[in-house]
Amino acid sequence: MVQLVIGNKNYSTWSLRAWICLRKAGIAFDEIRIPLYEDGHSDKLKRFGPTGLVPVYRDGEFALWDSLAICEYVAETHPHLWPDDRLQRAHARAICAEMHSGFRAIRGQIPMNCRASHRRVDFSPELREEVRRVETIWSQCRQTCTVSGDWLFGRFSIADAMFIPLALHFQTYDVTLNDTASAYLQTVLDDADTKAWVADALQETEIIQECEAGA
Amino acid sequence: MVQLVIGNKNYSTWSLRAWICLRKAGIAFDEIRIPLYEDGHSDKLKRFGPTGLVPVYRDGEFALWDSLAICEYVAETHPHLWPDDRLQRAHARAICAEMHSGFRAIRGQIPMNCRASHRRVDFSPELREEVRRVETIWSQCRQTCTVSGDWLFGRFSIADAMFIPLALHFQTYDVTLNDTASAYLQTVLDDADTKAWVADALQETEIIQECEAGA
Repeated sequence: MVQLVIGNKNYSTWSLRAWICLRKAGIAFDEIRIPLYEDGHSDKLKRFGPTGLVPVYRDGEFALWDSLAICEYVAETHPHLWPDDRLQRAHARAICAEMHSGFRAIRGQIPMNCRASHRRVDFSPELREEVRRVETIWSQCRQTCTVSGDWLFGRFSIADAMFIPLALHFQTYDVTLNDTASAYLQTVLDDADTKAWVADALQETEIIQECEAGA
Repeated sequence: MVQLVIGNKNYSTWSLRAWICLRKAGIAFDEIRIPLYEDGHSDKLKRFGPTGLVPVYRDGEFALWDSLAICEYVAETHPHLWPDDRLQRAHARAICAEMHSGFRAIRGQIPMNCRASHRRVDFSPELREEVRRVETIWSQCRQTCTVSGDWLFGRFSIADAMFIPLALHFQTYDVTLNDTASAYLQTVLDDADTKAWVADALQETEIIQECEAGA
C-alpha cells in the first residue's frame, strides 16, 4: 500500500497539495501524520525522506519527496492530472512552479489555519501584491478556459492541487477577490476532498504558534 | 525563432538553468539579455512575462516562465532530458524540486558570480548544512548511477541543468567536497556549454552589489 507522510492537516499546505493529488487520482493510500514543530519531528521525518520535510510518498522501499515531484510522478500514470492541450499544460506547470518557489508573504503572513476564521492582519505591500497575483492567475485561467468544469483548467489538474491551500489561507483572513476569483475559491471550498481534509483538520488539537498569525 | 529572456550571465542562475536545457536539447534560440537590479528592469521584464522574473521562454505569442516549467515543456518533445527509468526520473524530479524551492543560504550567502574566485565568507550553520546536502545529492546520484556518462543520472538531464549553477557557486568560494562530488563538479566545469556561458559572463561589466558576497 502506498503511504503518504504528512504534517498537521490544520497547517501543512504542502501535505495537502500531495494528498489531494492522490485523492483525485483515485490512488488508495495510508496516511502517516507527523505533527510539525514538535520536539524531534525533523528526526522522525528523516526516517521517511532525506529532507526532513513533508510530504513524502512511500511505496515499499521507494521514497519520493517534494509535493511537485510527487504530483508529476502520479501524473505519469494519471495524465488527466494535467490539461490535455500542450500549451495549457505548460501554463499549468508555470503557475505550479510559481507557487512552488514563491508567495512567501502569503505563506508567512497569512498562513493556512483551517480552524481559524475572521483573522485580521495588516497587509504589507508584498502581501497585497502576492494576493493580487493569485487573483490574476485564477481569473485568467477561468476566463480563458475552454474546457468544461470549474477548476482552473476546467477539469481538476495539479494546478488546482497547488492553489487549493490558498483558498483556505484567503478564507481565514477574509481576503477580498474579484468575482471570477471568488467563484473559484468557492469551487475549492465546495470540493468534497477539500472538505474531508478540513474536517480532519478541525479534529486536530495541536497549536503551532508560528502559524497563528492575526487576531 | 524561440527566444529566451535572461538576466546577467555572471549572476543569474535561473537563467543559466533554462539556457543550458535549451542548449542540450539542441534548440536554436535568440537570447534577450536584460541586466537585473537596474532601474526599470522589472518593468522591462514584465513586457515578456507576468512575474517580472527571468527566465522567460518565448515562441511567437506564447510566453512561458519559470526555469523548471520551461525545462518540463522542452522535455515533452525531448524526453531524453529526463532519465529513462521511471523511479530514476522521479528521483531526478525530487532533487530538481528541492533545488527549485530551497538552498536559500547557498543562493544568498555564496551567490553565483562567474567572474570571482577565491572569495571568503563565514559559513553559517545553515550554509554548511545546505552544502552537505548538495554533496550528498551529487554523491548518491553518481554512486548509484548505472547509466553510462558522468552526469548525475549518466546522460545529461534536467537535474544537471538545475545543479550546474551550484558548481559555479562552489568554485567561487572554494567549497570543499568529497571526491565523488568533486568529480561531478569537474564534469560541470569541463562542459562545453557551461564554458560558453561563463565565457560570456566574463565579458559582462555590470556589478550587482547584492551578489558580491565575500572578500
